[in-house]
Amino acid sequence: MTTIKDSVHDHIRIDGVARDLLDTPELQRLRRIRQLGTVSLVYPSANHTRFEHSLGVYHLACEALEHLNVDGRQAERVHAAAILHDIGHGPFSHNLEPLTHRRTGRYHDDVHDLLTNGEIGSVLRDHDLAPDRIADLIAGEGRFGQLVSGELDVDRMDYLVRDAHHTGVPYGTIDHGRLVRELTFTDGELVLDEGNVQTAESLLVARALMNPAVYSHSVARISKAMLRRAAERLLDAPETDVDAATLQRMDDHDLIAALRSCSATETFSRRLDQRDLYKRAVWAEIDDVPGGIIEADHEAVREFEREIADDAAVDPECVIVDVQSRPSMKESTSRVVVNGDIRRLGQQSPLVEALRAAQYSQWRLGVYSPPEMRERVGRAAVDVLGLDIEGALVSEVRNGLDATLDQFVD
Amino acid sequence: MTTIKDSVHDHIRIDGVARDLLDTPELQRLRRIRQLGTVSLVYPSANHTRFEHSLGVYHLACEALEHLNVDGRQAERVHAAAILHDIGHGPFSHNLEPLTHRRTGRYHDDVHDLLTNGEIGSVLRDHDLAPDRIADLIAGEGRFGQLVSGELDVDRMDYLVRDAHHTGVPYGTIDHGRLVRELTFTDGELVLDEGNVQTAESLLVARALMNPAVYSHSVARISKAMLRRAAERLLDAPETDVDAATLQRMDDHDLIAALRSCSATETFSRRLDQRDLYKRAVWAEIDDVPGGIIEADHEAVREFEREIADDAAVDPECVIVDVQSRPSMKESTSRVVVNGDIRRLGQQSPLVEALRAAQYSQWRLGVYSPPEMRERVGRAAVDVLGLDIEGALVSEVRNGLDATLDQFVD
Amino acid sequence: MTTIKDSVHDHIRIDGVARDLLDTPELQRLRRIRQLGTVSLVYPSANHTRFEHSLGVYHLACEALEHLNVDGRQAERVHAAAILHDIGHGPFSHNLEPLTHRRTGRYHDDVHDLLTNGEIGSVLRDHDLAPDRIADLIAGEGRFGQLVSGELDVDRMDYLVRDAHHTGVPYGTIDHGRLVRELTFTDGELVLDEGNVQTAESLLVARALMNPAVYSHSVARISKAMLRRAAERLLDAPETDVDAATLQRMDDHDLIAALRSCSATETFSRRLDQRDLYKRAVWAEIDDVPGGIIEADHEAVREFEREIADDAAVDPECVIVDVQSRPSMKESTSRVVVNGDIRRLGQQSPLVEALRAAQYSQWRLGVYSPPEMRERVGRAAVDVLGLDIEGALVSEVRNGLDATLDQFVD
Amino acid sequence: MTTIKDSVHDHIRIDGVARDLLDTPELQRLRRIRQLGTVSLVYPSANHTRFEHSLGVYHLACEALEHLNVDGRQAERVHAAAILHDIGHGPFSHNLEPLTHRRTGRYHDDVHDLLTNGEIGSVLRDHDLAPDRIADLIAGEGRFGQLVSGELDVDRMDYLVRDAHHTGVPYGTIDHGRLVRELTFTDGELVLDEGNVQTAESLLVARALMNPAVYSHSVARISKAMLRRAAERLLDAPETDVDAATLQRMDDHDLIAALRSCSATETFSRRLDQRDLYKRAVWAEIDDVPGGIIEADHEAVREFEREIADDAAVDPECVIVDVQSRPSMKESTSRVVVNGDIRRLGQQSPLVEALRAAQYSQWRLGVYSPPEMRERVGRAAVDVLGLDIEGALVSEVRNGLDATLDQFVD
Repeated sequence: MTTIKDSVHDHIRIDGVARDLLDTPELQRLRRIRQLGTVSLVYPSANHTRFEHSLGVYHLACEALEHLNVDGRQAERVHAAAILHDIGHGPFSHNLEPLTHRRTGRYHDDVHDLLTNGEIGSVLRDHDLAPDRIADLIAGEGRFGQLVSGELDVDRMDYLVRDAHHTGVPYGTIDHGRLVRELTFTDGELVLDEGNVQTAESLLVARALMNPAVYSHSVARISKAMLRRAAERLLDAPETDVDAATLQRMDDHDLIAALRSCSATETFSRRLDQRDLYKRAVWAEIDDVPGGIIEADHEAVREFEREIADDAAVDPECVIVDVQSRPSMKESTSRVVVNGDIRRLGQQSPLVEALRAAQYSQWRLGVYSPPEMRERVGRAAVDVLGLDIEGALVSEVRNGLDATLDQFVD
Repeated sequence: MTTIKDSVHDHIRIDGVARDLLDTPELQRLRRIRQLGTVSLVYPSANHTRFEHSLGVYHLACEALEHLNVDGRQAERVHAAAILHDIGHGPFSHNLEPLTHRRTGRYHDDVHDLLTNGEIGSVLRDHDLAPDRIADLIAGEGRFGQLVSGELDVDRMDYLVRDAHHTGVPYGTIDHGRLVRELTFTDGELVLDEGNVQTAESLLVARALMNPAVYSHSVARISKAMLRRAAERLLDAPETDVDAATLQRMDDHDLIAALRSCSATETFSRRLDQRDLYKRAVWAEIDDVPGGIIEADHEAVREFEREIADDAAVDPECVIVDVQSRPSMKESTSRVVVNGDIRRLGQQSPLVEALRAAQYSQWRLGVYSPPEMRERVGRAAVDVLGLDIEGALVSEVRNGLDATLDQFVD
Repeated sequence: MTTIKDSVHDHIRIDGVARDLLDTPELQRLRRIRQLGTVSLVYPSANHTRFEHSLGVYHLACEALEHLNVDGRQAERVHAAAILHDIGHGPFSHNLEPLTHRRTGRYHDDVHDLLTNGEIGSVLRDHDLAPDRIADLIAGEGRFGQLVSGELDVDRMDYLVRDAHHTGVPYGTIDHGRLVRELTFTDGELVLDEGNVQTAESLLVARALMNPAVYSHSVARISKAMLRRAAERLLDAPETDVDAATLQRMDDHDLIAALRSCSATETFSRRLDQRDLYKRAVWAEIDDVPGGIIEADHEAVREFEREIADDAAVDPECVIVDVQSRPSMKESTSRVVVNGDIRRLGQQSPLVEALRAAQYSQWRLGVYSPPEMRERVGRAAVDVLGLDIEGALVSEVRNGLDATLDQFVD
Repeated sequence: MTTIKDSVHDHIRIDGVARDLLDTPELQRLRRIRQLGTVSLVYPSANHTRFEHSLGVYHLACEALEHLNVDGRQAERVHAAAILHDIGHGPFSHNLEPLTHRRTGRYHDDVHDLLTNGEIGSVLRDHDLAPDRIADLIAGEGRFGQLVSGELDVDRMDYLVRDAHHTGVPYGTIDHGRLVRELTFTDGELVLDEGNVQTAESLLVARALMNPAVYSHSVARISKAMLRRAAERLLDAPETDVDAATLQRMDDHDLIAALRSCSATETFSRRLDQRDLYKRAVWAEIDDVPGGIIEADHEAVREFEREIADDAAVDPECVIVDVQSRPSMKESTSRVVVNGDIRRLGQQSPLVEALRAAQYSQWRLGVYSPPEMRERVGRAAVDVLGLDIEGALVSEVRNGLDATLDQFVD
C-alpha cells in the first residue's frame, strides 16, 4: 500500500493492480502532460498534469465502488480502468486531438493496444485482468464503464474540482463527496439516488460555467489553435519524420523540443513561448455564420484560410480559422431517481435546456492573426466566409483600434 | 484603524465611521444573532452570525468603492450603511420576519429610527452623517443603495461565500473578487461591465443551488415553522408581556430563554433543543395545490390548521401548515453591459428563465406534525386543503411508514 | 447510516451506537455550547460548537481505528467514547471549569454518572456497552483511552484544524490525515510509526502557536475572567438558587439568561454583551511575579483583589487578578518510533524543550479593571502583589495613557 | 492595468513597470521552470512555476509597500525587483545551482547583466529605472532589498504558502496577510512591529517543517542529485557544445530535450522520466560523518564516488555521494520590536536555537545507487568515507533487504 499526497484529495491510498500500474513508464509519462494544455497561458497556476488527475479519478472510483458495495475482481478492473483512463492522451491533452484523430482515426480513449502491450499489459496479466475488458471500461462500455466514462463519471468529478483548485476559478467546486455517495445502480443503469435532481444539476452547471471561463476562454482557444497549426506543420515538414502516431505518444517536452528545432514551426514555437499570441480578428456568434462554414471539413477550412490570406495579402500562416463544433450537452442524459422512477435529467430539469441555450449563445467562430494584421484579416474573413460584418468583427477591428479585449493577460 | 480576522476574507481593516459604529451595543448585538437561524439543525457547522457577515459586507463595499473610485463622504455613507445593513434583524434573522412584519408593519431593513436614536445616532452625527440618508441606502434607495441592497449587492456576495464556508455546501463559492471588480456605474445604474454575462449568471446560479440545499432545506423549513409558531404563542401568552416590537429587538439568547420559561412554548422549545422535530405529512408541488391556498392570508392558514387538526382529531398545536410565497427571482433584473448596451440579465441569459422554472418546480407546500401523527394529519390536510393526494403526501405517509426522508439528520 | 455535512471534514458518516447517541438530549445540548467560549470576542467567526467538534472527533476516531484494524465491539466502545467525550462540558466549555471544579470536585471528563443515567445510559445498554468502560476511555484510561484522550488523541487533531478554520488563524492547520494514518500500537502504547518525529513536532508546534494567538489571547483571557467572576457571583447571589452542579448542566443560553436576570451579575452581563471589557492594568512575565502569587489558592487571590481594590479606592468588582497555572506541556511525552525504538518526543526533539521555554516566556499574570481605573488599579496591584513595576505594568498604564494594545479589537 | 487570476492570492492586479515587464521573453520563460524542480516526483501536484511565484511575490510586495506608505519611484523599483527576482534561475530552479555556480561563478540572484540587456533593459529604461539599482534590490542590498531578499522577505512568504497549496503539505500555511501588515522600518531596518515575536516564530517554524517534508525529502534529494549528475555529464559530453552559461539560460523543456538526446545522459533521463530512481545506500547523521567529508570540495567528492564504485565493483555512474552543506538558519536574524527595542529573533525566542538543533539532527549524508547494488555500494561507502556503519547504512541495506523506505512513492 502506498500513500500519495494530492493537493485536491489530500491522501490517496493506492493498492493492488493500481499500485503496480503506477510504476509503468506509460503512466509515469502522464506526469509530463499538462491537464489543460495551453490554458496555463490564461491562468498561470494551471500547470497540473494528467498524472495527478489520474490518481484523483482512481481515488473517487474507489470511493464510489465502496458505496456501491463492489469489491473483488470487478473492483480491480474498475481501479485499473480509472487509473489508466487517460493513458491514450497525447501532448497537451485534448489540444491536438482533432489533428491526431484525423490522421490516425483514433481518439485518446481508444486504448486496446496500449493496454495489451508493454509494461501495462504485463501488469494487467500478472493480476489476471484481461486488457480488453479494461479498455472497454475506459471506452465507457458496460455497466461499470459508465462510472469511468459516462454522464456521471468520476473523471468529470475530479477534473472540475482540480481545475478549479489550480486555475483559481471557483465554479468547478462541486460536492464530489455527495455525488460519489449518491450513485447507485438501478436496472443496470448508473443513476443518482432519490433526492438528487439538484446534485445532478450542480454538476451540469459547474461544467457550463467552467466552459467559457476556462476551457473555451478565447486566449486558450487562440493558443490551442496556434499549437495545432504548428503540430500540423511539424507532421508535414520534410525535414522531420514525425508522424501522427509518434506525435500521439510524445509528452509535452518532446513536442516543444520538436517544434523549437523544426524550421517550419519555430515561429509558432517562439510565439507560444513568449505569449506573443495571435489576436481575434473575427469572433462571430452562431447566427452570424452560414451553416456551411460550421459543417465544413478540415480541408475546406484550410481552403478558407488560404482565400482569406490571399484576399488580405498576408502570409497564409498568419490566418487561422477556428470553427467549434455545434454545441452538445452530454450530461443531459444523466439519470436521476425521482419518486422511484429513473428519469433523464433533461426531462426533469428546465436547467438542461437553458444551459444548452447558453452554450449555443456562447458558441463562437474565431479568425485569428498577428495583431498588426487583424483589421485586414478580419475584413477579408467577413467577405470570404460570408459573415454578418457587424456581428462578427471584434470591436477593435471594426473600429480600427489595436487593443486587447482579454480579461486576463495571463 | 483596527484589523479583524475573519474566516472568509482573512484580515478586514476597519476605519472611520465604521470603526466607531463597531463598538455600539446595537452592532455588538448582531454577534448573538445567527445568520441562518435554524439551518444549524441541518448543517451543524452553520453557527455564523450577522456580526461577522456585517463585517464582510463592509469589507466588500470598501473594495467595490475603491474600484469605482468613490471616496470621501459618499464612501463614508456607504461604509456606514454596509456595516449597519442588518441592524434591524430580530432573533434568528429572517426566521421570524413574517410574524414581526405582520404585527409591526416593518421589515428588517426599515431602520430609520434605529439609526436616529441610541449610540448609532450619536456616532453618525459625530461623523456628520445624516441617519436618514444611511437608512435610505440600507433600504436600497439611490445610486449607491444598489450596492448595499440591490440585484448586485455586496450583501449577497458575502452571504453566499460565507454560508458555503460554514455549511460546507460548496455551491455558494462565487468569485466575489471578480464581481466586486467588474461593477461599474453606467447612466446611474450599477451594472456589471462588458464580458460578464457569465459572471452575473454565476451569482444567480449560486443562489439557485444554495436555496434548496440550504435556505429551504425541508428540515430548516420545519424547524423555522416550529420556531415561528412558538414565537407567536409567546406573543399571545397571557403570562408574558412580550410584544412584537420587543421580540424584534431581542437576540437569540433572549428568545430562547423566553421560550423556555413560558408554559405556552416550553414544548416547542424542548423539541427544538433536542432536535425532536415535526415531520412532513404533506409536501406538495405547486401544481397540486389550489391557488386559493397559496394566496391565503395568515388568518386563513391558521383556520386551515384548526380544521385539519379537528379532522385528524389531534391537538391544534400538532399541525403546522407552511405556505411559501410564489417563486420570484430578484437577480433577473441584474444589469450587464453587452456590446456597449446595458441589458437586463433576464433578457440576455436563457438561464434566468430556467432558474425561475427550477424554482417553481422546487416550490413546496408543507404540512408538519409530530411523527406519530403524520399519517392522520397528512390525510386530513389533503381533504381540507383540496390537494391531489398522490402528489401531496410524502411517501411514508402514503404508504403508512414512519421513516425519515431527510438526507442529513443534522 | 446518516451522513452529516461538516465544514471541516466534509461528509461524516455516522452509524451504530454513535448514530443512536446523536439523538439524545445530552448530545444535542452540545449544539448550544461554543467550542471556544469567549474567544469569539477576539475572532468573530469563532462560533463553532462542541457538537460539531464531537462529530469531528468521532470521524477521526473511525479513521484511526480503520488504520489500526480495530473493529467489532472494541471499535463501538471507542466510537461511543469519541462522540461523547465532551458531554461533561458546562456552558462556554472550559471557561468556567476552574469554578465548577472548585465547587463540585469534578472536571468535564468525569462522566460516569452522565453515561449511566438518562437516554445515553439507555442507548449504551441497548448496544450492550458498559457505561463505565466508555467513561474510562473518556478519562484516557486503557489502551484505547490514549486515542480519545492522550498525548496523541484525535480530540486535539480535530480541535486544532477546526479552530483554525473558524478563527482564520492558520497555525492549527495540521496534517490530520497523516497523523491518523501513522498511529500504531507498540507494546500497548499508542505511538507514531517510524519516520514521524516531524509529524509529532508539527502537532506540538501547532498547539504552541495557537495558544497565544487564540486560546490565551489577552482579550480572550479578560473576557473569560469576567465571565467566571459573573458566574461566581451568580452562584453566590441570594436571589437565585443556582448551584455549581446546575450551572455545569446549563447550556450557553441558560447561563446568559441567568446572568442577565440576576441583579448581582447584570453589569458583567451587559459588559460582555457590548464588548465593553476590562483592560489590562498589569501584564507581568513569570520572572516579575513572586512565586507565592503563582501558587496562591483561590481564596488568597480573592483576598489580593480586595486589597488591591481597597488600595486603589475602587469597588472590589472592578479588580480581577488572573493567575495562569505554571506552564506544562502534555505532548512532550508523545511517543514516536525511531529506528525501531519507542522514544518520548521530549527525548528526541529539541523543539519540545524550546516550546516549553517559549510557553514559559509567554506566561502572564493579568490584573484587569475598567479602562478608566487602569492606572490606579495597576499601581495598587504592583504594590500589593510585590511585582516588578517596570516589567508588570502595561505601557499605557505606566505612561498614564488610556489606549488599547489589542491587536484585534474583535 | 491587468488582472491575473492566481490559485493562491486570487486576483493579482498588475500595473506600471511590472505590467510591461510581464510581456518580456525573459519573464515569460519562468512559466517553463518548475518552482520545486524534482519535488514533483514526491508530490505529484507540485508542478507550479517560477512565473506564478514571481507574480505572487510582486503582489505581496505591493501590499507591504502600501502598508509602509511607500509609493512613487521607490515603489516602482521594488515592484520591478519583486517581479524580476527569479529571472536568473536556470532549469529546475535551485536543483542545478551548485553546478552552474561552480562553472560560472554566479548564483541566480546575480542579475545585473540580465536586467541591463534585452527587453528587460528596454522596459526598465523606458520607465527611467536604472537596471543596476533593481539588480541590487534583488541581491538584497539597501533598505528595500530586505523586503525582496532578506530574513523577512516577501519571497519566502509567497513560496511557503504556494508550496503548501500545491504539494498539499499544510505546514507552509503561514499568515502572510499578518506578516505583510506588521512589517515596519525602524532605524532603517525592516522589522516586525511590536507584538509579533510569535508571528516571526511562525515563519521560522513553517520553513523548518517544510524543509524535511518537502524541500529535503529524500526522494527529492535523490532525484535532484541524479539530475545534477546528468547535467554535469551533458556539459562534459564531447557530442554537445552546451556550456554552463547556456545551461543556465535554458528552460525545463530545453534541458529535458538535451538530456534525452545525448548518449551520455539518456540513461539518467530515462530513469527520471520513469521514476526509476536510485535508492539510498547510506543515509548518515552528521555525527556519524567525518568532518573532512562534510567540508570536501566537489572534486574530492567525485573522487570518493570513484573509489566507492571501484570498491563495490560497479560502474562509477552508479554511485552518487550527496553532501549537504552544514545547517544554517537565515531567519534567526529576523528583527522584531519588543517593548520598543529592536531585537534579533534569535535573542528573543528559544525556538530559534531549537530549530537550529532540529536542523542539525535532520542533516543527512546520502549515498545513492540503483536498487540492485545498494548493499554493495553502501558497504563500500562506509569503508571509503569512514562512516559509522550502524548509524549510516539504511536498514534494508544493513539487513540485506531490498525494500523502500519512502513514505510517498510519488
